[in-house]
Parts: sequence; C-alpha cells; structure tokens
Amino acid sequence: MNFTLSEIATALNAELQGDGSLRVTGAAEPGQAGEDDLALAMSPKWAEALQLGRARAALVWPGADWREMGLQGAIIAPRGRLAMAGLTQLLDAAGAESGIHPSAVVDASAEIGEGVFVGPLAVIGAGAVIGANSRIMEQASIGPGVRLGQGALIHSGARLGRNVVAGDRLIVQPNAVIGGDGFSFVTESESHVESARAELGQGKVSEEADPTWHRIHSLGSVILGDDVEIGACATIDAGTIRPTRVGNGSKIDNLVQVGHNCVIGDHCLLCGHVGLAGSVNIGDRSVLGGKVGVSDNLNIGADVVLTGGSIVLSNVPAGRVMMGYPATKIDSQVESYKALRRLPRLMRDLAASRKG
Amino acid sequence: MNFTLSEIATALNAELQGDGSLRVTGAAEPGQAGEDDLALAMSPKWAEALQLGRARAALVWPGADWREMGLQGAIIAPRGRLAMAGLTQLLDAAGAESGIHPSAVVDASAEIGEGVFVGPLAVIGAGAVIGANSRIMEQASIGPGVRLGQGALIHSGARLGRNVVAGDRLIVQPNAVIGGDGFSFVTESESHVESARAELGQGKVSEEADPTWHRIHSLGSVILGDDVEIGACATIDAGTIRPTRVGNGSKIDNLVQVGHNCVIGDHCLLCGHVGLAGSVNIGDRSVLGGKVGVSDNLNIGADVVLTGGSIVLSNVPAGRVMMGYPATKIDSQVESYKALRRLPRLMRDLAASRKG
Amino acid sequence: MNFTLSEIATALNAELQGDGSLRVTGAAEPGQAGEDDLALAMSPKWAEALQLGRARAALVWPGADWREMGLQGAIIAPRGRLAMAGLTQLLDAAGAESGIHPSAVVDASAEIGEGVFVGPLAVIGAGAVIGANSRIMEQASIGPGVRLGQGALIHSGARLGRNVVAGDRLIVQPNAVIGGDGFSFVTESESHVESARAELGQGKVSEEADPTWHRIHSLGSVILGDDVEIGACATIDAGTIRPTRVGNGSKIDNLVQVGHNCVIGDHCLLCGHVGLAGSVNIGDRSVLGGKVGVSDNLNIGADVVLTGGSIVLSNVPAGRVMMGYPATKIDSQVESYKALRRLPRLMRDLAASRKG
Repeated sequence: MNFTLSEIATALNAELQGDGSLRVTGAAEPGQAGEDDLALAMSPKWAEALQLGRARAALVWPGADWREMGLQGAIIAPRGRLAMAGLTQLLDAAGAESGIHPSAVVDASAEIGEGVFVGPLAVIGAGAVIGANSRIMEQASIGPGVRLGQGALIHSGARLGRNVVAGDRLIVQPNAVIGGDGFSFVTESESHVESARAELGQGKVSEEADPTWHRIHSLGSVILGDDVEIGACATIDAGTIRPTRVGNGSKIDNLVQVGHNCVIGDHCLLCGHVGLAGSVNIGDRSVLGGKVGVSDNLNIGADVVLTGGSIVLSNVPAGRVMMGYPATKIDSQVESYKALRRLPRLMRDLAASRKG
Repeated sequence: MNFTLSEIATALNAELQGDGSLRVTGAAEPGQAGEDDLALAMSPKWAEALQLGRARAALVWPGADWREMGLQGAIIAPRGRLAMAGLTQLLDAAGAESGIHPSAVVDASAEIGEGVFVGPLAVIGAGAVIGANSRIMEQASIGPGVRLGQGALIHSGARLGRNVVAGDRLIVQPNAVIGGDGFSFVTESESHVESARAELGQGKVSEEADPTWHRIHSLGSVILGDDVEIGACATIDAGTIRPTRVGNGSKIDNLVQVGHNCVIGDHCLLCGHVGLAGSVNIGDRSVLGGKVGVSDNLNIGADVVLTGGSIVLSNVPAGRVMMGYPATKIDSQVESYKALRRLPRLMRDLAASRKG
Repeated sequence: MNFTLSEIATALNAELQGDGSLRVTGAAEPGQAGEDDLALAMSPKWAEALQLGRARAALVWPGADWREMGLQGAIIAPRGRLAMAGLTQLLDAAGAESGIHPSAVVDASAEIGEGVFVGPLAVIGAGAVIGANSRIMEQASIGPGVRLGQGALIHSGARLGRNVVAGDRLIVQPNAVIGGDGFSFVTESESHVESARAELGQGKVSEEADPTWHRIHSLGSVILGDDVEIGACATIDAGTIRPTRVGNGSKIDNLVQVGHNCVIGDHCLLCGHVGLAGSVNIGDRSVLGGKVGVSDNLNIGADVVLTGGSIVLSNVPAGRVMMGYPATKIDSQVESYKALRRLPRLMRDLAASRKG
C-alpha cells in the first residue's frame, strides 16, 4: 500500500480536508498508528487515542477537529463502516497471478476462461466451465459439470460438487462444501419420528417395524446468484430434484448449514452456525443472526430479522423481528423474559399471602 | 437416465397403470416437467401443477385420477418419500471408474481391493486396507492403519485419521473429519470449571492455582458399523483408550460434532449441528433434531426423539420425546411455554387486583 | 508401547506399589484389559470390572486394595485424568519422520526449520517460516507469510491463511481454517438490521433503500500464542485491521467459530460449536461450554464459566458462572427454570380459586 490522501479520498468518494499530498503506507487503529499510517477514527470515541498515536492523517467522523488532534490531513467518513469497505478493498489489492500451476489436475474437457489462476494441487473436473479472471486456490476442487461466472475466488480446500452453478464474483472461503448430498432418509413404514411429529405433546414413541433408513439421493445440485459469498466450513447441500438456491448478493458465514431444496432470496445475511433444515424458503433481505435454526419446510418472509440463537418452528411473515426458542415476536419475547425473571418472587409472595 | 415406465415400476416394486412403454429421460416437479420427464406428484397437492406441466407420466398418490390430469401412464407410490429413495438411487447411477489416479499418493504397504477408484491427489497411508469397489475421491486422505469395508464412498477432502475402522458401504461427505483428537484437557489441581460443576447454583468461581491445561491424547480411534453416512464438515473424534463408536445404519448430518468415547447405537439420525460432548451414549433408533446438544457422560436411551435445538443436561430414558433448554418431556415443555406466554398478562392482572 | 511399571511410574511422577518389573504393552479399560495391558481404574467404580478383566497391573485410586483385586502391581493416581494426560502422551510417541515429501509444493522463498516434516501434497506459500521440528501433514496448506514457532503439528487439510502467526507447539486438527475472511458487510445507508437493533422491542422493520452489501476486507490476519490447539473444522477469522488473537495455552474445540477482531485470553477453553461474533473479548482462564454463542462487541471477563448452550447478549463480569438464553447468573437462571415448571399448575390453581 502506498497512496496519497487525495488518492484515497477519490477512491472512497469522500471529502478531503488538509494536506492531500500526504502519503500513507498502511492503516491502523489510532493508538497503534505510526507516522505513515492512516489512522481509522470514524467516531468520537477515538479522539483520545488519536492524540496518543503518531498518525499524521486519519479517516475521521464529520465535525472532528482533526487539526486540534495534531493531524495534517483528514478524510471525512460520515458512515464509518462504509468507508472501511472502500478502504480495505483498496488495501487488499490481490496479486495478478494467472495461469495453471503444473501440479493442478485439470480435466481435458474443462473450459478455463481468460486470466484464470488455478493454484497448486487444485482439481477441476470434466466439463467444468471457469469464468474469466477467476482464481481457484490451492487444493480446491471443482466437480464435473460445475459452471462459474467471471471473477470467482475459490479458496483453499473448498469443494464444489458436480453441476454446481454460480453467477459472477462468487467468493468461497476455505474448506466450504457446496453441493454435498442432502440429509434425506426414509423408513419403509412410518417411523417413530413421524409419529412423534403427528402427535406433538404425547411425549412417548413406540418402536417401529423396520428401522432401516433408505437414502434419497440428491440430484438437484445448487444454483448461486451473482455476488454470493460462502464462509469457511459452511455446507450448502444439493437439492433432491430441483436445485438448492442462494439469490444475488446473499452472504453466508462460516459453519452455516443450508439443507437440500432451500431457496434463499437476494441480499440475505446468514451469520455463523445458522442451520436451515431441508426445503426452507427465506425471503429477500432477511438477516439471520448467529446460531439461528429453522425447522424444515418453513417459509421466512422478506425483510425478516431473526436474532442470534433463535429457533424457528413456524412460518414467519415478512418484516418481523423474531427472537427466542421457539422464536416469537421480539417484543412479546422480551416481555416474557422479564416476567420470568420476576416469577420466583411472585411465587414466594403468593405462597406467603396464602399462609398469611 | 433413460428408462421405460415399466422398468421404473419394476425397480421400485410399485404398481404400474397405463402405458408402460413410455420412455422418460429425467425427473422433475410437476410444474417444471417436460414431455420426457417423470413428474413427481406423490400427494394430491400436486394435482393442479400436474395439469400445468407437460409430463406424460408421473409418480402419483394412490387413487389419483391420472388420466383426468392428462397423463398416459402412472406409477402408484403409496409412500412417496420411499419411492423417491428408490427412484433417486436409480437416477444416480455412479460412474464405473476404477483404478488409481497417477497423482494420488498411495503407500506401498496399503491394500487396495478390487475395483477400487482412488481419485486425483488423494493420499492413502501405510497399512491402510480399502475394501473392494470403494471410491476414494480427489484430495481425500486415508490415514495409516485405516480399514474400510466394501463399497465405501469417501468424498473430496474427507479425512480419516489413523486406525479408523468401518464396515461396508460407508459414505463420507466432503471435508468431514473422522478420528481427529478428542477435546480432553486437565489442570494439575482442581480447575474452576470443576468447582463450578460441583457447586451448581453458586454462580461465582475463584481463580485457580496453575491454569495450564494438560492434554489427554486420543489413542482409541473410531469404529463405524455398516451403512453409516457422515455429513460434510462433520467431526467424529477418536476415543481416548476405547474407540468412539457409531452403529450400523446410523446417519450423521453436516457439521455434527461427536466427542471422544461416544457410543451411538444402530439406525440413529443426528441432524445438522448436533453436538455430543465426550462419553455420551445414544441408544438404537434415536433421532436428534438439528442443533441438539448433549452434555458429557450422559445416557440417551433407545427410540428417543430430541426436537431441534434441545439442550440435554441429564439422562433420557428410552422412548421419550424431549424438547427445550434444559430438555424436558415435550408435553410439559409445551405447557410451560404456553404458560410463559400468558404470564405477563397474569402479572398485570394480579397487580391490578391488588390495587383494586 | 512397551514399558515396565517402574518406567511408567517415573514418567508420571507417581507412586508405584508392588512389582515394578512387570511389563505392559498397552492400556485398556479394566473389563477389556488383557494380561499385558495396564488397566485404567482411577476410581472405585472400576473395582468390580478390574476383577473381571485379566490385567496384572493398573493405574488405581489412592487407597485401592489392588492385591485383593488380583493385581501384582499398581500405580497410584490421586488425580486420575492428570495421570491419563501423562500416560496417553507416553503412549502416543509420534513417529520421527522428517523431510519434505516430493509431492509437496513448497515455495522457494519459504524458510523450513530443522527436523521439519512436510507431508504429501501439502502446500507452503511464499515467505512462510516453519519452526524447527514442526510437522505439516498431508494436504495441509500454509499461506504466504505465515510464521509458525517450533514443534507445530498441522493436521491434514488444515488451512492457515496469509500472514497467520503462531507461537510454539501449535496443534491444528484436520480441516480447521485459520485466517479466513471476517463476515463483515455494510449497506450504503442504514440497514433494517441496524434499525431493528436500535429499536429493540418494536418487532417490525421497514424495507431499506439499497440492500447491496459492501464487503469490508480482512487485512489483520490472526496471532496465536504458545501451546494453542484448534479443533477440526474450527474457523478463526482474520481481523479487519488489527489481528484476531488467541492467547497462550488456550484450546479451541471442533466446529468453533471465532469472528474477526476477537481477542481470547490465556488458558481458555472453547468447547464444540461455540460461536463468537466479531470483536468479542474473552478474559484469561474462561471456559465456554458447547454451543455457547456470544453476540458481537461484548466483553467476557476472566475466570468466567458459560454453561453449554448459553447465548450471551451482554457483558459478563469476571468470575461469573452464567447459563441460559439470554445468559444470566446460574443461580437466578435455575430459580427461573424451576418456577417456570411450576407455573402451569399455579395458573390452574389461580383460575380455580377465581371460580370458587
């Protein structure tokens, strides 16, 4: 990294104040910043640290009196995290490597686009199509029949199963698995799980006849839209007959499980350890906090927010904020929690008043 | 795929009605089915979609008036998902590849059975034994001393640690890890966790003497029965002295954690994100829903159903259906939830009656 | 394994009783022990099993009457699991392999210390530094700029991203990912998640303007202390600007997620499926049970114990034992649970008394 303040301000489309010719070679939190670092001080809580560090330039909040804090130049960031998106992209200039490493195993029938990099010991299967300027990093595997759009970045050890299709700019973090087989089994006659579901509340199951689980194979693969990102060790299972789908611009965090036949809309966020059982639908722009679980065959509407740890056992209408196990509207959930905290005392009071 | 209706009916051991000579080349949901697809319409909810699609043949529910819906032939599926198991298996005819890819690294002392396929860049360790007709896919690793029965399918990037033993027809999805080390550590003197456990309810811990964690190594490996399946990125830890065990016909979903020394019975299902701490026993035919957690050293009986998201903190007798955190019998759990929902109102009523 | 009782007692720094010249070639649980096994009987619950097995020597609890149980020699283990740590380490003598397998791809600029083993098909990137006596197992990847101290053990398929730094004796289980990108995205204007957070309890969100998620890149990598262990398929994300950190002696179990910018202290335990959102701080010696979730930007003090399944939504002071969702002090949590179980009956009683 080596940019002038002016160059950075232009890249971020942000207001520059002071000496635009100042040159920075790194970025740092204000207290750790050296003379040549751009200090990241997008809120007033950093004011004190700025004065302790040695930075001469900073990203600052609107209205910051940066001269007072000893700086010679500043870029104004009204929405700090958005500025961070632009800045970190600027700093993360990827190497211009391309070409196929001699240790990679690429099937003769695969189509490799222009400017593609295939790293050491990667495998690309029969009939796969890799869009221009994609990077398939070391030891990743691209199954037979996979089709990737332009500019994909498939990190080390990621696995894309047969016939997975993705739009442009797909990012897959290390060791993620897209297109593994769905978890779909059936017994010859009705199993005790099915009975338990049918008779909710009975609390007892009887032994079934033949407990052998017959496997339903997954033939539907996975279709991902444009600008999708999949986290490390996340797993997106193939659909049974129709594909499992993830819409444009949706981002899936580490260790998330998306079951077979799920359909996730556009611009969704699924945070770490989210688990969707089979055939769940998630509407556009919905956000699922960490560790959210959704039972199979449910519909979650658009613009829903599920707070971290919620377990969803029924459909959720569009626009709801939900919480808890089982997940309910956040306001009634919070009310219940508060009441529960006061319940032991209430019980003691009632017991006392009976005796009294 | 290219079968006549008669051939499919025979393979599924199902009743054929109408023109058995009709030839289909794929399967699809009724609305998306083309002329040469077998439409999958195993319940009356698909009746309308069947008429919209272009299929000439379908898998249908018993009693379906398929001629009325414009079909020329039908296969009757009294248990729809069971028919799906047979059909998808028929359609998923695996390639007949065999032989060892030249880029694979196979130890000279390994025994490779007849008809085995070893994919590109796979590794097979010293003394490993691979049963006939197994497939070790690209970049998988089979540790030293591993013994696999016949017909194993080990997907890309899966890791089988030293001395793992499996019966016939093992399936391991991509990037799963079988036989990693158990999470087992001990401090020199009693740690604050042990104190906290011993004094449940006190809510405060004191600092311990020497906080260094000493590692208990895992020497016991893992033994899997016949017909076991392990999901993508699932982890089955090695036992300490005796092996961790998974019984015949049990299926383990993606991202499941099975701790060291666990013993899982036959024909169990462990759904996505299930976590078993060390030394948990699970009886035969038990089903653990997604995200279920079980604390260490507990016994879960046979034929138990734990609903998704349950956290189990005590032993569970055979045949129980359990729910919640901490998990209790589903009927009392549901009763508690309902009462909790009504609690805020009860408190308001009681407060009002006191004032009144 | 082939040791005399005396040798084992010396290695464990433990008291020997009886015939120290007895030679054992394995270790086993008392009931399964053969003539040449050391039986592991560190508590009185094993007394009966000892008599059923064929062992002539055992690890026993203080005060055990081992002669009465038919043994010829015994090693006294006042703290059984600590003895197990020593014994299993003794039995787990790793092979003395070293050298670089010809199929590994090691960048010419990498520095490989003395006695290092690099397994088949492993990849080591540009400028990486591998400390003496480390073992990089088959198919693992070490990114560019990574620096590992002495004696690291990086198992098969583990991924260490660019610039990850670790102290001595790092252990990484198979398919773990250290230094993947953080899950950090921002919309151009305020998103509905931000509104939902700001207006907790409202339970409804409105559609936002431009739902596109802009990516904040992760430039900060990860710094791990000495004696850290990372479990199979665990994921430790890189920091944004400053590094994500794990302190000396901390152990992280399988399938754990540590978000970007987290700082974990020394001697912590994070059990299976723990999930930390971004920028969480965990104090020294804290223990997080299985499936614990911690929301972003929270501070967990030193010596905290979070019981399995807890979801933490606010800061936790040092020394607390917490439980539940949302996590609260364990004593008040247990009191609330008990009250909740009695609530349905209380409601019935109150309803009856109103009618009466």
